[in-house]
Amino acid sequence: MKLIGQRILEAIEKIPLIDPHTHINPLIPASSNLADLLGYHYYTELAHSSGMRKSRIESPGGLSPRSLVGRLFTEGLPSVSNTVQYDWFLDICRLFFGWEDFEVSSNNWESLYDEAEKIMSNANWAEEVLRKSNVEALFLTNNFDDDLVGFNKDVYIPCLRADELVFQLRAPGVRERLISSSSMNLTGSLASLREVLEERVKHFITAGCRACAISLPPDFAPEFIPFEQATQAWESALQSHQAFATSKDRSLSYWVFWTLSELCDQYELPFDLMVGVNRDVYRDGVHQGRDLFDSRMSLIQYAELFNSFPNVKFPVSVLASVTNQELVSYSWIFPNVITNGHWWYSNTPNFISFDLSSRLQSIPRNKQIGYYSDAYKLEFIAPKFSMYRKILASTLAEDFVVTRKWPEEKAIQLGFEVIRGNISSVFPNRSKV
Amino acid sequence: MKLIGQRILEAIEKIPLIDPHTHINPLIPASSNLADLLGYHYYTELAHSSGMRKSRIESPGGLSPRSLVGRLFTEGLPSVSNTVQYDWFLDICRLFFGWEDFEVSSNNWESLYDEAEKIMSNANWAEEVLRKSNVEALFLTNNFDDDLVGFNKDVYIPCLRADELVFQLRAPGVRERLISSSSMNLTGSLASLREVLEERVKHFITAGCRACAISLPPDFAPEFIPFEQATQAWESALQSHQAFATSKDRSLSYWVFWTLSELCDQYELPFDLMVGVNRDVYRDGVHQGRDLFDSRMSLIQYAELFNSFPNVKFPVSVLASVTNQELVSYSWIFPNVITNGHWWYSNTPNFISFDLSSRLQSIPRNKQIGYYSDAYKLEFIAPKFSMYRKILASTLAEDFVVTRKWPEEKAIQLGFEVIRGNISSVFPNRSKV
Amino acid sequence: MKLIGQRILEAIEKIPLIDPHTHINPLIPASSNLADLLGYHYYTELAHSSGMRKSRIESPGGLSPRSLVGRLFTEGLPSVSNTVQYDWFLDICRLFFGWEDFEVSSNNWESLYDEAEKIMSNANWAEEVLRKSNVEALFLTNNFDDDLVGFNKDVYIPCLRADELVFQLRAPGVRERLISSSSMNLTGSLASLREVLEERVKHFITAGCRACAISLPPDFAPEFIPFEQATQAWESALQSHQAFATSKDRSLSYWVFWTLSELCDQYELPFDLMVGVNRDVYRDGVHQGRDLFDSRMSLIQYAELFNSFPNVKFPVSVLASVTNQELVSYSWIFPNVITNGHWWYSNTPNFISFDLSSRLQSIPRNKQIGYYSDAYKLEFIAPKFSMYRKILASTLAEDFVVTRKWPEEKAIQLGFEVIRGNISSVFPNRSKV
Repeated sequence: MKLIGQRILEAIEKIPLIDPHTHINPLIPASSNLADLLGYHYYTELAHSSGMRKSRIESPGGLSPRSLVGRLFTEGLPSVSNTVQYDWFLDICRLFFGWEDFEVSSNNWESLYDEAEKIMSNANWAEEVLRKSNVEALFLTNNFDDDLVGFNKDVYIPCLRADELVFQLRAPGVRERLISSSSMNLTGSLASLREVLEERVKHFITAGCRACAISLPPDFAPEFIPFEQATQAWESALQSHQAFATSKDRSLSYWVFWTLSELCDQYELPFDLMVGVNRDVYRDGVHQGRDLFDSRMSLIQYAELFNSFPNVKFPVSVLASVTNQELVSYSWIFPNVITNGHWWYSNTPNFISFDLSSRLQSIPRNKQIGYYSDAYKLEFIAPKFSMYRKILASTLAEDFVVTRKWPEEKAIQLGFEVIRGNISSVFPNRSKV
Repeated sequence: MKLIGQRILEAIEKIPLIDPHTHINPLIPASSNLADLLGYHYYTELAHSSGMRKSRIESPGGLSPRSLVGRLFTEGLPSVSNTVQYDWFLDICRLFFGWEDFEVSSNNWESLYDEAEKIMSNANWAEEVLRKSNVEALFLTNNFDDDLVGFNKDVYIPCLRADELVFQLRAPGVRERLISSSSMNLTGSLASLREVLEERVKHFITAGCRACAISLPPDFAPEFIPFEQATQAWESALQSHQAFATSKDRSLSYWVFWTLSELCDQYELPFDLMVGVNRDVYRDGVHQGRDLFDSRMSLIQYAELFNSFPNVKFPVSVLASVTNQELVSYSWIFPNVITNGHWWYSNTPNFISFDLSSRLQSIPRNKQIGYYSDAYKLEFIAPKFSMYRKILASTLAEDFVVTRKWPEEKAIQLGFEVIRGNISSVFPNRSKV
Repeated sequence: MKLIGQRILEAIEKIPLIDPHTHINPLIPASSNLADLLGYHYYTELAHSSGMRKSRIESPGGLSPRSLVGRLFTEGLPSVSNTVQYDWFLDICRLFFGWEDFEVSSNNWESLYDEAEKIMSNANWAEEVLRKSNVEALFLTNNFDDDLVGFNKDVYIPCLRADELVFQLRAPGVRERLISSSSMNLTGSLASLREVLEERVKHFITAGCRACAISLPPDFAPEFIPFEQATQAWESALQSHQAFATSKDRSLSYWVFWTLSELCDQYELPFDLMVGVNRDVYRDGVHQGRDLFDSRMSLIQYAELFNSFPNVKFPVSVLASVTNQELVSYSWIFPNVITNGHWWYSNTPNFISFDLSSRLQSIPRNKQIGYYSDAYKLEFIAPKFSMYRKILASTLAEDFVVTRKWPEEKAIQLGFEVIRGNISSVFPNRSKV
C-alpha cells in the first residue's frame, strides 16, 4: 500500500497546478520576510489561543517584522508545534530556504530570519516561488471595485468577491465605491442597482474573471424576493448610514444574491458558494482570527437556488466536515452542484481524508474540484497542496488500487481530474470570447 | 491483518442471506436486459448529475432498452466510473455475465448487452440469481392494497409499506384504494379509519408479513393526537381533493402513525423507521433521483414513541451518517431501538465503515441488523452485500481480532449474528401462528 | 507502524496519572464485590437494552450482590460481549483478579465472583488499585453541600458540581441544603443568593478544589440576565414547591450560571462544561441509564460566555462526536476554551480515534486535556485509560512519527502533555494559596 501510494504521489506531484481560490495580492504576491509568512492569521490566532496576549502580537504602535517574529518564536509558536498549520510553515522553510533543522526555536530563529530575508529579496522571488511550487496560475479574490490592472491575467486570474455587494450595501462607503467604480448612479429604483451590478460583472468578465465567489453565514437561505419587498429594502438601505450592515432584514441581501445568480447565468460565470461562516464570534481575537461557525446548517437552504439556476455552476465549499455528507449527496443529485476543496476549519488532514474519500466514492468524477490553497501569499500554495496530494495519493491507493483493484494509471488519471482537469472544465478560460 | 480479514470474509460469504428490505416486485423479480439494471435510479441520476440531459434519459416518447443503454454508456457513465454505485454494476457483470474486461465503454457495451440479454432470458433466471447470490429469502415493500398473491412467500416476504397511509390520506385516490382493498367503508369517524387500518394489517399478517415500514421526513416528530383534534383532521382530509397531501397540518399523519404503532404492538409486528428523507428536493431530477435530506434532525423526535411502545421493535435506518451516533446511543439505551442497515446516501464504503465500527463497539450484538440491499431487482443484492461483507470482515479483523485479541471464530460468530441471525430473531416468521 | 506505536505506548504507560474527572466517593472509593463493578450503569443499561427486564435488575425488594451478578451473567451480559464497555470489565478481571479465561459466562462466573471478593476484601484494596493503575490523584464530583472532610485531598481532589445550583433552585430541598450548608440565609434579594454561592465556592477553594463542573442540556445558551429579570425569577423560585425544576424559564439558571462564572473568574477556578445531555429521555430505563442527547447544538451558544470571561479557563466536553469539530475550532480560536476528554457516548474507540486525531492536528498542544475516566469506582480508571492510551499511541505513531516524520521522543512528549502535563497547568494546585 505504502509503495503504491508513493508511486501515485510522485505522478500527481508532476501535475502543474491552477489554484482556484486564493487571497493573493497580484501586485505583492510573495513575502519579503518571515513576518509576512507568520503574520498569516493561522499563526497569530494559534499563538494567541495558546496564551500569547494579543497586545504582544498587534502592538498599537506597530512592531518591526523582526520583533514580531522573535516574539512569536519565543512566546506563541512553541505551543503550536503539533499543529498541521505549523507544519505548512516548516515545509516552506525546507522547500524555499533550505532549512534542515528539525525545529525552529527561540535559539535558531534569527539565522532563519536572515537567510529567508536574503532569499526573498531576489527580484524574481514571486516567479521563483511559482516555479518551485509547480503553479501555472491562480485565482484571486477581488473587491468589486478593483480596477484589475497591473498584473499578468494569465497567471493571476480575477475572481469577483461578492460579500460586500450582498451584505454591505447599507454602508454608505460601500455604495459610494460602487458608484465611483461603475461611473453610474444609484437611485431608489432596483433597476439602477441591477445596472450597476451588471456593469461590475461585465468589467470583471472583460478582465478575464473566471468565477464569482461569496462566503455565507450558516443561517443564509436565499430566496426570490418580490419587487415591492426588494424595492422597500433598497430604499431603506439607501438611507442607512451604518458603517456595517446590521439589519436583521435579509431581503436586500437575498435580492442582490439572486440578481448576481441571474448575472452569473447570463454571463456564464460559476458562482463559488462558501457556506457556513459566522463572522466576529471571538470579538477580541487577532486580525482574521475571530470567525467561527455553527454546524447546524443544511444545504436544503440552497435547494431553491439550485433549482432556479440549473445552468449556473455552483462550486460549494462547506466549513464543517459534518456538512460534507450533505454536500456529497447534493452534488450526487444536482448537476449544478460541484464540490470545492476543503475549507478553513475542515482543511486539516483528518477531515480532508474522511471528506475526500466520501466524495471520490459517490460523486461523478467531473464534478469535484479537489483543492484550493486559500493562501494570502504565494509561498503557502506549495505546502498546502503538498498536504492535500499526500492524502489524495493514499486515498487513491487504498480505496481504488487496493480495495477496488484499479490499475495505478487509472487512479492517477482520477487524481489528475480532481486536482487539475476539472478546474479547466468548471472554470473555462473565456477571456477571448 | 489482510489475511485475517480474508479468512473472516470467506467464512461470512458462506452465510445464506435473508435480505430484510428490498423493493423487488415478486412477479418480475429479475432483470431482462441491461436497461433494467442501468435504469436503477443510481445510474440515471448520476449520469444526469454528471451532465447528461434528462431528456436523453427519459424521452417523452419512450426509448428502447438498447437505445437507453447505448446513450448511458456514451454520454453519462464515463463520468461516474469512480463511484461505488458503478462498481455494483461491474460486479453484476462479472458475477452473472462472465464479463472480464476491466471496463465497459462506448466501444464494447453492445457485446455485453447481447450476452447479458441472452443469459437473462433463461426461464429460471430469477432462481439462478438467488442461488448465485446465496439468498434464501428477501423482504418486499408492498403497498397497503397489494393482494399479496402469486408468489412464493417463503422467498418473497411481505412487508407493509405505510407511507401512503400516513402521508397521503388527503388524496381521494388513496382513500378509494383503501376502501376498495378492505371492502369496508370510511366515514367521518376515527373508529372507521382505525378499523380499515386494522383490516389491512390483518391482511398482511395472514399473508406472512414480517414488518411494517415507513420512510419519514427530517421534521417528523410523532406524538399522540387527542381524539377531538384527530377527528377534525380526519374530517378535513375526507373533504380534500388534492392529488398530493400538502397540508402543513401533521395531526392526521401523527394519528395514523400512532395507530399503526398500536397495531404493530397488538400484532407483534416490527416497525421499520427510515428517518430523514426530504422528497422532491431537486424538482427536475430524473425518476427517483429527486430526494435529499436535511441532516438537522434528532432521534429525540422519536423519544415519546419509543417510550410509549416498549413492546414494539423499531429497526431504525438513518439517512445521514451524522445521525448515526444518535442511533448508536439510542439503541444502546432503548431496548426497542434496533440499528438497521446503511441506508441510501450513507450506503457507501466510507460511511458504512465508520458507522459500522461505532455500532459494533457499543450496541448489544443482538440488536444490530447489519445490512439490507434496498434493491429493485434481484441482481443488485449480491454486489451490495458483497460490498458490505468486505467492510464487515475488515472491521471484525481490525477492531476485534487484532485490537481486542478475539479468536477468529468468535469474530465470525458476531458477523453471523449481524448479517443473518438477528434478522430471524427481530423479524420472526410467525406465518403459522 | 505497529512497532512504533508499541514503543510509544510503553513510554506513555509509565506516566503517573491524574484523572481530572471522576464520580468516585472518596470514603468508599473501591469496590467490594463484582456487583459493585457490574452495577455500573454501563452494564445494567446494556443488559436491559439487550432484552433483560428492568425488574430482573432492580428488584423492588432489593437483591443480594451475588444474585444480581448471577442474573447479569446469565441473562444480560452474553448479548453485550461485543461492546467495549464489557471489555473494560474483562480488563479489570485480568489486571486485578488474575483472570485468564477468555470469557466470563454463566458457567464460570461464580469462581470469579469468589476470587474477586476475596481480593477486594484486602484492607488496602483502594491503595492497591491506585498503585496498580499508576494513579497519583483524581478529581471528585462533589455536591455543593459536601463537607469535604475525611479523605486525603492530595489524592482525592475536590471539584464543585454545579448542576443543582444552576437547575434545581426551584426545589425547596435544594434551597434548604444551601441554607444549611452555608449557615447563611436566603432572602428574596439576588445579593443574598450571590453571597451564599460565594460562600460555597470559598468553602471548596479552602478544601483544595481545583475545578467547578457542570453538565448542560443541548438547548442551554447562557447569557447575562439583567437585575430586574433575575430578581423576578428568583422571587418566583423561592415560592416554588416543586420537587424538580420544571420551569421553562431559564432566567434563574442563566443568572446562577453567569454568577458562578464570575466567581470562577474571581477565585481563578477552571469551569468544566459538559455540554449536550438530555436527562430522562428513556423514562423506564434503569438507574442512570435514561439520559441521551440531541446532537443539534452548537458552541455558538457559548460564544457570549467565552467572550465575557476571557480569564476563566473552560475545559469543554461534548457528548456527540459531531460536535467535536466545533470544539476543535472554538479551542483553536478562543484562548480560554480547552478540549476535555472523550465523554460518555463519545467514549468508544472509533469516536475517540477520530476526535483525538482532529484535536492533535490543529489545537495548541497546551490546551488539550486528553482523558478522564468519569469512573464511579477506582477499578475503572485503569481499563478506560488503557483504552485511551492505545488509541493515543497509535495516533501519535501514525499521524506524527510516520506521516510527519517526528522523532519518537517528540511524539511521546506530546503524549505526556496531553495525558498529564496539561492537567497540572490547566488545574493548578492552589491549595497553599
